[in-house]
Amino acid sequence: MFDTLPGFRDFPPEACARRNHLFRVFRNVARAFDFREFDAPILEPLDLYIEKSGPEIAAQLFHFEDKGERSVALRPELTPTLARMVAAQANALPKPIKWYNIGEHFRYERPQKGRGRSFYQFNADLLGEASIGADAELIALLGAIMQTLGLGEKEFAIRLSDRQTWILFLDDIGIDLKQRPSVLDAIDKSGRRKPEQTIESLNLAVPGKGEQIFQKIEEIKQINDLDTLLIKLDSFGIEGQARAKDWQNLMSELTAHQVNPFVKIDLSIVRGLAYYTGFVYEAFEASGEGRALAGGGRYDHLIKKLSGNVDLPATGFAIGDMTLSDCLEKNGLLPSYIMAPDIFVISGQDQRNSGIFLTAKTRKSGFAVSHSLKATGFGKQFKEAGKSGARYALIIGEEEEIQKKVKIKDLKSSGEISVDQTKLIQQLEKIDEEGGINSSE
Amino acid sequence: MFDTLPGFRDFPPEACARRNHLFRVFRNVARAFDFREFDAPILEPLDLYIEKSGPEIAAQLFHFEDKGERSVALRPELTPTLARMVAAQANALPKPIKWYNIGEHFRYERPQKGRGRSFYQFNADLLGEASIGADAELIALLGAIMQTLGLGEKEFAIRLSDRQTWILFLDDIGIDLKQRPSVLDAIDKSGRRKPEQTIESLNLAVPGKGEQIFQKIEEIKQINDLDTLLIKLDSFGIEGQARAKDWQNLMSELTAHQVNPFVKIDLSIVRGLAYYTGFVYEAFEASGEGRALAGGGRYDHLIKKLSGNVDLPATGFAIGDMTLSDCLEKNGLLPSYIMAPDIFVISGQDQRNSGIFLTAKTRKSGFAVSHSLKATGFGKQFKEAGKSGARYALIIGEEEEIQKKVKIKDLKSSGEISVDQTKLIQQLEKIDEEGGINSSE
Repeated sequence: MFDTLPGFRDFPPEACARRNHLFRVFRNVARAFDFREFDAPILEPLDLYIEKSGPEIAAQLFHFEDKGERSVALRPELTPTLARMVAAQANALPKPIKWYNIGEHFRYERPQKGRGRSFYQFNADLLGEASIGADAELIALLGAIMQTLGLGEKEFAIRLSDRQTWILFLDDIGIDLKQRPSVLDAIDKSGRRKPEQTIESLNLAVPGKGEQIFQKIEEIKQINDLDTLLIKLDSFGIEGQARAKDWQNLMSELTAHQVNPFVKIDLSIVRGLAYYTGFVYEAFEASGEGRALAGGGRYDHLIKKLSGNVDLPATGFAIGDMTLSDCLEKNGLLPSYIMAPDIFVISGQDQRNSGIFLTAKTRKSGFAVSHSLKATGFGKQFKEAGKSGARYALIIGEEEEIQKKVKIKDLKSSGEISVDQTKLIQQLEKIDEEGGINSSE
Repeated sequence: MFDTLPGFRDFPPEACARRNHLFRVFRNVARAFDFREFDAPILEPLDLYIEKSGPEIAAQLFHFEDKGERSVALRPELTPTLARMVAAQANALPKPIKWYNIGEHFRYERPQKGRGRSFYQFNADLLGEASIGADAELIALLGAIMQTLGLGEKEFAIRLSDRQTWILFLDDIGIDLKQRPSVLDAIDKSGRRKPEQTIESLNLAVPGKGEQIFQKIEEIKQINDLDTLLIKLDSFGIEGQARAKDWQNLMSELTAHQVNPFVKIDLSIVRGLAYYTGFVYEAFEASGEGRALAGGGRYDHLIKKLSGNVDLPATGFAIGDMTLSDCLEKNGLLPSYIMAPDIFVISGQDQRNSGIFLTAKTRKSGFAVSHSLKATGFGKQFKEAGKSGARYALIIGEEEEIQKKVKIKDLKSSGEISVDQTKLIQQLEKIDEEGGINSSE
């Protein structure tokens, strides 16, 4: 009668378990890196996004006027919210601030493979530290998450680039400060466009020189090893030499973090958004196919712009759930969760309440336990136990009740033993450790 | 510069940890009861809610027209979504269906204590089983969650009532089928209204008899013990006797589930919503103060109404996060999470990469580890380690590096030992088991 809205997803239990597997890995690895989870409203003032991205952003948002005549929007990203929250308690927070979030985000656009109108993102941000060590920490976190999910260097790569390096190159080929933003924008889009289109954009930015700049840019984009890059940067004077040192430090810290096998220098990465100020990166499948799995970088001026008064250097990245799930699925890395209780309790018609009592007792000890919700015969209950997928049945009939015993039956091996009710939990834990009940028992 | 919208909440790390504590208990207990987690969009077609609750509901919702001219709403509750999802795969799903969700919900109303415009709910529903055992299973789940959160019979009570019992009472005092809904509505509201208002409503439902019905209703509402209730029901013929048996079975199953200390028979509970068809209940603080902590009951006809074609008996409840958090806080039951890493790594200026290497190594073994993000002196790093709250420091200086060792310092006892780098993880686990390093070491 009703459907989900286009671009939105239902998560029945199996899909929900697969999604939660990602969330669990995000949480565990972020915790190992000593990041703290935070959360925030999914509905925010529309102006929060317009302030950051300009009024054009509204076209891509779910936004409306609420009953109090406020212009509000479903959040498309988390950074503006983070800036608001950090600015509100900036003085009280010890630095560096290492925060992460796992949450739902929204954008109004044509739903397509890997892009929905609703999606989940893992966001990690590190504020208050301008050193290269902060960039390395985040790239290491991204690498560790991917590794923990089972992705290795054959499956994914983090393509690393740098806005400052690009600015030095652009200075070198004579692009001035005013032309810079449109040229960077043209470089960012060049991977998805025909050469003629890029040349046309470059001609608009630097009249008459589009073709020539295009050739130089294509050469720069080919640089993919540290040595070549360092030689180039060394030729750009003091600023270039300082940035060469930053590159060396970053690469050596990434090696110490043991994520170097995944990191590829790739200057074709520029990141579309204007606010990045330093190292930027995107994770892709190793094949290079498909959309980015993750992306981020340094954005040292944005917190000030968004908060108005708090100035904090910052770096961060986001991983989306949709492309990542597709990638894991393709590599057979999405575990299929067994949806079954540990125990199914079966009771005689007159022992129903004793059965419920044992159900409650085993549940309190941490077992996942089901039982028949109405009084029926043993046959029906055994059938129900089998269908449930439970490994063990607890059986309490007339005889067991009189003797204060309960039968534990291994539904896999068919082995069974009778134990005192008072020793039930101990026995279950012992059996669990031994891997089951021997069928001869 | 920007604020959260009124009625919405930010969750900085500490608030987020307290909220996640609730979520963790919801998940663990639901898993012990063999319920499966599912999730669903927070944005749904507005008609989904109008179909269930009538067009008046729109006044309480965040709703708008999206760019595709669809009328959409932020979900105020989960039941319509659940009905849609279950109906979509009703034949494929084994019965009973035991599903739960932890998610955000929204309503547009004046924010006040315990009621925001955005709030989280734990929803548990059991579909496909009409027996009393299903009602008992859910009340037991609600009780087990409250107990696991640390609430005992001195802190909370589940007030249990029954729509069918009320109908038998109303039949008995001469209320007919047409008058029934308005009379039930008046009973539901009577706890929050002056007697004159209730009498006025009853007079509208049954002209001239408001006063008389009011007196009888007040008498019925006083019944709070099973024996009195059973005697009354026994006098209502076959239907009354059958319902007396249901009450007896339910109470005895709740005793077997060991939640009977929390369950109080209280016929003043009717639940506002018209769709309940059987046993209904609300959890309150034992003092009776404040809003309900949770509420639910049986709704056997709603799935058919919402899905159009699938008919499944159903029972379910919801717990909101705001009143529950307030109640736990009042009782000192919201744990204050220690936000600290396990380990802080300190390295000499020339051992920075070795320090990062040990950071990565310990993180992979599951420890939460921080380190200084830039090269500084030992003094500054020790200060940072102290501020972080870490229990242990790992120290690698020149000497340690040459000898392939690392120093483990217990920042609480000041005890320290030097260990081979290859045995670091083993040693850390040993120290952790022993509760620290003796200060004489």
